[in-house]
Amino acid sequence: MRSGFSSEADIIRAIRRIASRPKDRRLVLPIGDDAAAFRVHPGRLLLVSTDALVEGVHFDFRYCSPEDLGWKALAVNLSDIAAMGGIPLYVTTSIALPSKGLPDFISRFYRGLTALARQHSVTLIGGDTCRSLKGVFLDLTIIGDVEPTHLLTRQGAKPGDSLYVTGELGGSSVGLELLSRSKKPVPRSVAIRRHLRPQPRCAAGRFLAERKLVSAMIDLSDGLSTDLAHLCDQSGVGAVVEASRLPLVRIPVRQRQFLSHAAPHYALHGGEDYELLFAVPSRLSQSVPNRIGGLPVQRIGCITRSSGIWLLEGNRKHRLHPSGFDHFA
Amino acid sequence: MRSGFSSEADIIRAIRRIASRPKDRRLVLPIGDDAAAFRVHPGRLLLVSTDALVEGVHFDFRYCSPEDLGWKALAVNLSDIAAMGGIPLYVTTSIALPSKGLPDFISRFYRGLTALARQHSVTLIGGDTCRSLKGVFLDLTIIGDVEPTHLLTRQGAKPGDSLYVTGELGGSSVGLELLSRSKKPVPRSVAIRRHLRPQPRCAAGRFLAERKLVSAMIDLSDGLSTDLAHLCDQSGVGAVVEASRLPLVRIPVRQRQFLSHAAPHYALHGGEDYELLFAVPSRLSQSVPNRIGGLPVQRIGCITRSSGIWLLEGNRKHRLHPSGFDHFA
Repeated sequence: MRSGFSSEADIIRAIRRIASRPKDRRLVLPIGDDAAAFRVHPGRLLLVSTDALVEGVHFDFRYCSPEDLGWKALAVNLSDIAAMGGIPLYVTTSIALPSKGLPDFISRFYRGLTALARQHSVTLIGGDTCRSLKGVFLDLTIIGDVEPTHLLTRQGAKPGDSLYVTGELGGSSVGLELLSRSKKPVPRSVAIRRHLRPQPRCAAGRFLAERKLVSAMIDLSDGLSTDLAHLCDQSGVGAVVEASRLPLVRIPVRQRQFLSHAAPHYALHGGEDYELLFAVPSRLSQSVPNRIGGLPVQRIGCITRSSGIWLLEGNRKHRLHPSGFDHFA
Repeated sequence: MRSGFSSEADIIRAIRRIASRPKDRRLVLPIGDDAAAFRVHPGRLLLVSTDALVEGVHFDFRYCSPEDLGWKALAVNLSDIAAMGGIPLYVTTSIALPSKGLPDFISRFYRGLTALARQHSVTLIGGDTCRSLKGVFLDLTIIGDVEPTHLLTRQGAKPGDSLYVTGELGGSSVGLELLSRSKKPVPRSVAIRRHLRPQPRCAAGRFLAERKLVSAMIDLSDGLSTDLAHLCDQSGVGAVVEASRLPLVRIPVRQRQFLSHAAPHYALHGGEDYELLFAVPSRLSQSVPNRIGGLPVQRIGCITRSSGIWLLEGNRKHRLHPSGFDHFA
């Protein structure tokens, strides 16, 4: 962490206070030097992933508090480690923000981040804090590890594999639409909490990795139709999704007036659910439980030899085109 | 790396092509999945550092090309690993940029970055590319490693230690002033190259770490007066700097008209030189060479018991206040 000497030093001290957690014997040098240093387990692979969040593109302070943002920025990165079957260990945070309103934002952001970090025993080991001319920009890098035998990737799905998802789909994008369409402050419904405080599925990812049930896995960040296309591309396969099997978010009647689509649309194309999508060889599919630690697991389709992704609705079958979040739309 | 499916997929393919380098057997999973995975050496410490660069705050496209920016963004991060006595291994890049002019920027940025990455055998293992509403924001995270016995930190300088710097001081800030004051395109003088294409001192950092000469080290990112204050703060000591010993940047006569200060000002307070500042116990100071691989090494003062940093000019001694780059000025 590069550290100035005035307000920035105060920020670093504040971060240290907030980020302090029970002593981690692997962490030799925490925040405050040119780099953090930690011991690594021999015989394990290190996992590294980075995700950026930009004000006005990924979040809006009209409905997202700094605490929500801190939580979500970490959740998004934890979800990448979950999708590899790994264990998250350390995180670095880079924040660029306009000068005004600064101290309050920083402490509230880290309060949200550390609330989730504690749940996953993740330690903040560094970062950079600097000024932006306009808007808040966040970038987090997460470091985790995994046994070489447990590593799960987007490659490896085979024709005949069953396709599963954890949790419910579409909640986050329903929440986002409720937040952005409603002019009044909205009570925090389930869907809104899904959007603002997603729960990364690290425990489910580890469960699946340890039991070696999975041939390929990805987290649902951009939406099922888009992320399934990634998984199929990288595995060199296609897929069929059965519409009737999708675990749809339940939308209360009083909220439907605010929404432009029905639940299946959000489940197929809505982003940021951060559930896990995975393929399981058919001989292992009876070993997949209905729930992992209380989290529902649902079979939604299968992997096919021919490329292309199809949606099966009753007797009709049509192409499912990737229509989720495009980072440059 | 999160990957969309249209222009972003093209970007990732372009990055892969540019970033490809001789096969690294430790890198199990490169760019393209939810996280990168690599084997780590047992018995080594992993080093992690993050630095962000913001358009309009840290750089200006009126005089900094995308290639310069790619080089410099990596150089800044390599310098942090150099300051720990470590070996840089992997880097992740996050880029947020406005929609227009996109493809050209990305390829030119990575051309500059990979030119420096090759020199240091560093591999690009991931990142995130997304849209910003205004201006370019960059955040790089570098991962390196170091033997636990070789780790150098900002802590450990003792009263009586000698204080050294590598290279010349002030060049980068002179270069910045020349670039920002001149209305015409400026030929790339030594100072301007120092600003746009800094050379991180990884080889010198390793030399010093391997020979165990150093009690504390930091890289000069914010300016000598500021970074020396960091080193002294964290070591619980003070320092005296002898003005006559500073390795000043040479400013050609024809450039002086464009500059608001004389060379010592830039050497003391100018940022972004990315030279190494280090303390050496007096019994080891005769083992410090005058040059490390061609790079000059200069003794500039000593560490004192009493706190505070003093500048010795002839017979006069006055307080040297940290006046370098403040990330929130």
